[in-house]
Amino acid sequence: MKGHQTTIKDIAKVLGISPSTVSRALKDHPDISPKTKEKVKKLAEQLQYRPNAIALSLKHSKSFTIGLIIPEIIHHFFSSIISGVSDVAYASGYKVMITQSNESYEREVADAQALLASRVDGVLISVSKETTNYEHLKNLEKNGIPMVFFDRAVESISTDKIVVDDVNGAFQAVTHLIEQGCKNIMHLAAPAHLLISKNRLEGYKRALNKANIPFNENLIVQCDTYNGSIGRIENLIKTKEIEFDGVFAVNDATAIGAMRGIKNAGLKVPDDVKVVGFTNGLISLMTEPQLSTIEQHGFEMGQIAARILLNRIDNQDEFYIPETRVLKTELVIRESSSKTK
Amino acid sequence: MKGHQTTIKDIAKVLGISPSTVSRALKDHPDISPKTKEKVKKLAEQLQYRPNAIALSLKHSKSFTIGLIIPEIIHHFFSSIISGVSDVAYASGYKVMITQSNESYEREVADAQALLASRVDGVLISVSKETTNYEHLKNLEKNGIPMVFFDRAVESISTDKIVVDDVNGAFQAVTHLIEQGCKNIMHLAAPAHLLISKNRLEGYKRALNKANIPFNENLIVQCDTYNGSIGRIENLIKTKEIEFDGVFAVNDATAIGAMRGIKNAGLKVPDDVKVVGFTNGLISLMTEPQLSTIEQHGFEMGQIAARILLNRIDNQDEFYIPETRVLKTELVIRESSSKTK
Repeated sequence: MKGHQTTIKDIAKVLGISPSTVSRALKDHPDISPKTKEKVKKLAEQLQYRPNAIALSLKHSKSFTIGLIIPEIIHHFFSSIISGVSDVAYASGYKVMITQSNESYEREVADAQALLASRVDGVLISVSKETTNYEHLKNLEKNGIPMVFFDRAVESISTDKIVVDDVNGAFQAVTHLIEQGCKNIMHLAAPAHLLISKNRLEGYKRALNKANIPFNENLIVQCDTYNGSIGRIENLIKTKEIEFDGVFAVNDATAIGAMRGIKNAGLKVPDDVKVVGFTNGLISLMTEPQLSTIEQHGFEMGQIAARILLNRIDNQDEFYIPETRVLKTELVIRESSSKTK
Repeated sequence: MKGHQTTIKDIAKVLGISPSTVSRALKDHPDISPKTKEKVKKLAEQLQYRPNAIALSLKHSKSFTIGLIIPEIIHHFFSSIISGVSDVAYASGYKVMITQSNESYEREVADAQALLASRVDGVLISVSKETTNYEHLKNLEKNGIPMVFFDRAVESISTDKIVVDDVNGAFQAVTHLIEQGCKNIMHLAAPAHLLISKNRLEGYKRALNKANIPFNENLIVQCDTYNGSIGRIENLIKTKEIEFDGVFAVNDATAIGAMRGIKNAGLKVPDDVKVVGFTNGLISLMTEPQLSTIEQHGFEMGQIAARILLNRIDNQDEFYIPETRVLKTELVIRESSSKTK
């Protein structure tokens, strides 16, 4: 092996074991038997194996700071995630640097560069709605910076991911509306190209399917803002364009707009139309009636993401196996979907 | 002047002009006459004046990143500020690194250190409720990092400050309630030691005073959370402990809790009790009735703070005169304070 620097893969090949086992053996990982450790260490010495220089130098110049790239801080879900991340990070002696892409690809690229220049030890990221090119993220990886995706992950990058179980969340919401007696459930949806839209629509369909209710395309209305849904819903009721007795909205703000639109049209929530949102933000408690919704566990998501990242930083291992965690949602039943009469 | 490095002050003394004029003359500032510029530059050459080495070196290693220390991101006011700051910064080619102190002095100190280590070009900060020691901020200054305070400023540090006109905001809210016919206005207040509490109480008192309504200490109730005010208000009404027909709350969430408490006690808003909040967050639009409140202009505050900071970064001048800007508030009238009957 002249002119070639020995790698973990070389050692693995010679011994007929996996690179991950070699890596853990070199680090005295408790899962590896003393016998294997001895074999690996002996061969590593013979082949003059030296751990990756970049990884090592990074280890010695730790900044004890992690970077966090968030699409929109103003959203309750994302600000809950920030709190969860901070909680775990500061308790472990790490600082957190947050950047807000504001759903802009350009800003996200600038943010990734800034975090790299700041020598953060790792990055937590939820990509912007605009992002379809991932060079800036691959660049972080190339520079030996561990990265964990939360909520909005990139399929083609192999690293740890924590996502919300959107399909199941929507399934819970719509099944609940069906159980409360709704026959025609409108879905106020986000732009169709987004993964969360696809997943929540999928959950909506599964719930109908399970209850043997035929899917009606007219009940899917593209509308995902508070202001947008007020007029839209009021109008739909007044023109009697589509009949509906339930609304499942893609987020709480849109659900609350729908409640106002229903009232403006002279109908009552939950008597005439039952409404369920998605997020469980503070606002869902403050409306009249209080909003039934799906809890996404943002705080826990932040905590878990930070824990996985800190673990990756402390145990840099080029052969680790990335995992994808799917966080369960929870139905929170309040007044807006109460059974009446 | 042997053994002494010539400073701007030396030149100012010799010429009998202010250091600020010397500084601007050396930078070819348009406000300074060509004659003065010539005199200053000539003397600077004679005395072998060299601009401050640290300031210069900083200029050459600009990171084009500004740091932002925020107490609590989840508050609508603060997340609006972040948006305003980001807007101006990214448009000028700067990135923004946000840290959240979470109202903890310890975290704020760690955040300031992390931003320093990241070589940010300047820092925007609103101090935590716990912060009474300011060494970490003075340390930023010592390292030549310009700093601008927003909302919560430190009196003893001489730098630019942008604050909300809390006295006037409270005055507007309470005067409005008086004009709508309220005679006994309760004030739901934040902890008394905070400057915003003092200022808002001051505005409350001024409004009463102007209308010749005597101040009644029993109407000042320490309560500044949504959950807290629901039970508190319901109880005060049911026990008839204090009579009141108006509520001015220190923030929107508390005002909305009060509305629920009033309803729980069997009274109506605005018929029996009128309510005004403070913030103008998204939630104030989503309640039933919609909440009258005081707009604090967080987005504009963020924009102005960023503009002042970027200007300070681009024109480093040891003799600049710091300014304090007071941002006017605005009364937003909605349904919760409507005149009835």
